Amino acid sequence: MERIDDLQLKGLKIIQNPKGFCFGIDAVLLANHVRLKPGDRVVDLGTGTGIIPLLLAGKSRTSTFQGLELQESVVDMAQRSVALNQLEDRIEILQGDLKAPERVFPKSVYDVVTANPPYMHREGLVNPKDAKAISRHEVACDLEDVVKGAATLLRTHGRFYMVHRPNRLVDILFFMRSHGLEPKGLTMIQPKTGKAPNLLIVEGRKGAGKELKIKPPLIIYEESGAYTKETLALYNQQNLEG
Amino acid sequence: MERIDDLQLKGLKIIQNPKGFCFGIDAVLLANHVRLKPGDRVVDLGTGTGIIPLLLAGKSRTSTFQGLELQESVVDMAQRSVALNQLEDRIEILQGDLKAPERVFPKSVYDVVTANPPYMHREGLVNPKDAKAISRHEVACDLEDVVKGAATLLRTHGRFYMVHRPNRLVDILFFMRSHGLEPKGLTMIQPKTGKAPNLLIVEGRKGAGKELKIKPPLIIYEESGAYTKETLALYNQQNLEG
Repeated sequence: MERIDDLQLKGLKIIQNPKGFCFGIDAVLLANHVRLKPGDRVVDLGTGTGIIPLLLAGKSRTSTFQGLELQESVVDMAQRSVALNQLEDRIEILQGDLKAPERVFPKSVYDVVTANPPYMHREGLVNPKDAKAISRHEVACDLEDVVKGAATLLRTHGRFYMVHRPNRLVDILFFMRSHGLEPKGLTMIQPKTGKAPNLLIVEGRKGAGKELKIKPPLIIYEESGAYTKETLALYNQQNLEG
Repeated sequence: MERIDDLQLKGLKIIQNPKGFCFGIDAVLLANHVRLKPGDRVVDLGTGTGIIPLLLAGKSRTSTFQGLELQESVVDMAQRSVALNQLEDRIEILQGDLKAPERVFPKSVYDVVTANPPYMHREGLVNPKDAKAISRHEVACDLEDVVKGAATLLRTHGRFYMVHRPNRLVDILFFMRSHGLEPKGLTMIQPKTGKAPNLLIVEGRKGAGKELKIKPPLIIYEESGAYTKETLALYNQQNLEG
């Protein structure tokens, strides 16, 4: 029951299972907030269908990407997406647990780590073997595991980018500082002007000094329901290797 | 060289020294974000001219306020403002160091603690005896001292309200959680739509569960330079005892 969706970016396509977890605007927003330098080595933790590496590969020329995913069936699907786009030379999808990333990757060498982790606390009724639940709830890993995994993989001054929910901001900033990934940038994402934010993107740097820059909030929709020009500009960015 | 300013609130006045530290919009915003219950006992840490207790007394009926201030000349000025407004039965200004609030106040009994602390890190050239510098720079106390002092005074589930700068958000949330004042509410304050925030107001509760609510940002000015209706509504609030 898989389908192939067009990413509207240089002809890239992605394989998704509509009964599983399909990527949302949060993945697109995260990918478009990442800043790369030519030749950067990037790991995406909990990569799922591989949406983040695919978008980043489409928006860069020389950076290389590795995605870590726990669920074997999802790894297989992501690998087929990479092959479908003939990106095997720049994207590698690996099976493994982000709670022990050192079993799969070398430590302290990566320039960038990205993560679009499960947002919701583990709840009693969640089936721990349900692939969709694992993508949405903190069943197989929690927020601190993600931050700790990123800190393990990044080199000194390497950058960490994560999208998450505003109600977890204290946890996010607390765990980042606790694990040496000092939060340096924060963008609140509001559905409309005058509304509370419903997503946020945080950027941290391993071993950096203490000074956070909060950016202007990103407003997704106009009152009319159309995308704002800021959202469209993000979607239309062609090269993130600044 | 003192002057008496009208607070535009029930005829209240404040004595200020234009060569010293005069209150700004941040104090007004902080006071208007505080929620009081009838009979609440409130401490304002580093009260300065007493602006926060004066505004809160003007916007409530039965709560009582104590302001703690280090500098004796400033304590004297604040006490004269209280007397000028005949509020001696509801506001008391005390001299003391917020690094040891237990020398002046009982521990763990207050319902609310407010703080509009110095925003800037201590810098080499600041004169540690300059009254204005003490109000603006972390000369006599730092952010962690303020948070720790509030945690010492509040009862379980007592509320802490502080105004500060966004570049210190990580410190603020980290110190609050570390000292048991869980951050529960956060309002970013933007000068205009589309601009980065330049102030924030945080609300914490002693011993509360982990769940932060980020509110819609407060925009101070319209493009025309006039106050927005949200800002005017805050100024015009008459009773904070909900």
